[in-house]
Amino acid sequence: MLLRQAIGAVLRRIRLQQGRTLREVAGTARVSVPYLSEVERGRKEASSEILAAVCRALGVSLRALLDEASAELRYGPRVEVDVGRVLTTL
Amino acid sequence: MLLRQAIGAVLRRIRLQQGRTLREVAGTARVSVPYLSEVERGRKEASSEILAAVCRALGVSLRALLDEASAELRYGPRVEVDVGRVLTTL
Repeated sequence: MLLRQAIGAVLRRIRLQQGRTLREVAGTARVSVPYLSEVERGRKEASSEILAAVCRALGVSLRALLDEASAELRYGPRVEVDVGRVLTTL
Repeated sequence: MLLRQAIGAVLRRIRLQQGRTLREVAGTARVSVPYLSEVERGRKEASSEILAAVCRALGVSLRALLDEASAELRYGPRVEVDVGRVLTTL
């Protein structure tokens, strides 16, 4: 797994855990919705400045993001199942 | 501190701890010496593929790199002093 894939998966998970939309977070971070979507799917490399802006928009530190990405690399992608209206991470 | 600065500082520290030159690591990772130098100084964003290649060249996992970068963000840059022939991290 590449770094951008681990980071993208974590950004997406944090956003979903907060119950926020791509549009909302992209707007706060001042990036386009398609761009943030590509970053979340690990298809685009985000510059360090953009990563910082997305972290701020999500209210998480860059350090927390790295720690989560490290765990992502260790345990692999987590499966998220929509149980009723609650997103549960297995 | 931006992600590329934290990652660059860690890559440089690991390389120096191994007593290896920029030329040697760049050659193994198949990147140019000036490019690796810029990455180490946090001036250029390395793509995830290049980061993976540099990690392989250094014999460290991407996860270890992230963990060190997280510590770098927490404690800030470490001062390295050349005491005789031993590089000591303060």
